[in-house]
Amino acid sequence: MRNIAVKIMYDGGGYHGWQTQPNGITVQERMEKVLSELTGEIIAVCGCSRTDSGVHALEYVFNFKSNTGIPAERLPYAINTHLGNDGIAAVAAKDVSEDFSARFSSDGKRYVYKIWNSTLQNPFTAKYSWFVPYRLDVENMKIAAEKLCGKHDFSAFMAAGGSQKTTVRTIRECVVKESTEWREQLEVEVEADAFLYNMVRIITGTLVEVGTGRKTVEDIEKIIRDCDRRGAGMTAPPEGLFLKKVFYKPELLEW
Amino acid sequence: MRNIAVKIMYDGGGYHGWQTQPNGITVQERMEKVLSELTGEIIAVCGCSRTDSGVHALEYVFNFKSNTGIPAERLPYAINTHLGNDGIAAVAAKDVSEDFSARFSSDGKRYVYKIWNSTLQNPFTAKYSWFVPYRLDVENMKIAAEKLCGKHDFSAFMAAGGSQKTTVRTIRECVVKESTEWREQLEVEVEADAFLYNMVRIITGTLVEVGTGRKTVEDIEKIIRDCDRRGAGMTAPPEGLFLKKVFYKPELLEW
Repeated sequence: MRNIAVKIMYDGGGYHGWQTQPNGITVQERMEKVLSELTGEIIAVCGCSRTDSGVHALEYVFNFKSNTGIPAERLPYAINTHLGNDGIAAVAAKDVSEDFSARFSSDGKRYVYKIWNSTLQNPFTAKYSWFVPYRLDVENMKIAAEKLCGKHDFSAFMAAGGSQKTTVRTIRECVVKESTEWREQLEVEVEADAFLYNMVRIITGTLVEVGTGRKTVEDIEKIIRDCDRRGAGMTAPPEGLFLKKVFYKPELLEW
Repeated sequence: MRNIAVKIMYDGGGYHGWQTQPNGITVQERMEKVLSELTGEIIAVCGCSRTDSGVHALEYVFNFKSNTGIPAERLPYAINTHLGNDGIAAVAAKDVSEDFSARFSSDGKRYVYKIWNSTLQNPFTAKYSWFVPYRLDVENMKIAAEKLCGKHDFSAFMAAGGSQKTTVRTIRECVVKESTEWREQLEVEVEADAFLYNMVRIITGTLVEVGTGRKTVEDIEKIIRDCDRRGAGMTAPPEGLFLKKVFYKPELLEW
């Protein structure tokens, strides 16, 4: 039986996240339906992460087992033809080894969170960013972001509901930068070996509170040390968050 | 009576263009309704151009006469509060001289047309670009674009239905460039003193035909010379087109 990894991108605005659930249509459901139609088999897919309702993906990876004869390089076209304009597009597909798991074989992910920092809205970015109409001290946000890097217990940056064994994670990079697309847009990029539930959204909420002056750069170390969710900032809304990259060792999966 | 110029941006996807018409909701109608509510007067607005159904604006300027006491700098906030998430946002407003007309005082405009050049769609750009899945010779398109510059009779690049006195226009700049946002995206930017009906969309359609090899770089001069619409390429679809900038002499309007 083949094991096939698929890279997709999706606009999460119309979806209740990745994982199948009773309350609304999810990306997982959409993909399983399309792949079942294409292959004539009952397909179950394994996604690289649960993304929340409304969160977007510039790159998302899942894998599925199948006996289909469709060559991997043809699969994205076949998927896209079935999907139509559904806010999801397949970008690539590869045959992978039997034990590859999009979720458990990943050794890191990178997210970008977009903030619209202006008193005036923008109709092109409104669905893809958090509208923050307050003046932000971006330099302080940049310094605070640096202080989050490294191996720490990030329980203060985790929403209730996670099922992880440990809350220690290694943030490889955390940067705040001005967008090249729009002058009014800021981006928080975070790369880690793995993430806790809502971690990037809580990090962003905390950095914005440093930007407004509600918290100081010095608070960051204390927030990490105290391991108390109440010490960190608010959870930024889902529409600004994009999964940007999912990492695998090249011997497991290289696009 | 005051004469007020307003700069807005809008996602044209949900609108039947700028100009009020019986078949669907237009941006002009939306603005007149909001301004009438805000001022308590019956407001008629004068727009800088008729943009077609589905065309977007990164910058659009209109003006209107009113006795309202709302200071110009407060007006964008008042407008946006009334608009909600309607795909339109006011960006700036200024009091201008009595005889200023957003349409007739303008001495130039700049458009950008976005082309998605990949065999695979992208859910984030699909509503904002023309999906061209053929291999394009971008270098040839760049040379062809240059040949369109200057003062010419552009009748070959005009759809039927225009009401202009002359079909002579001066293209100040016409360039094809790779987008900085997405690797697969091309942009055609055209600046001219004024434009004929569908001019940028026909220019883009023609440049894409140069890209696919259906037309040659040398054809451009002949197409201009012949003044025959049938010589030029197809009209590119509206969703890729953005009005980017409207020019006025600084003594008339400076933002």
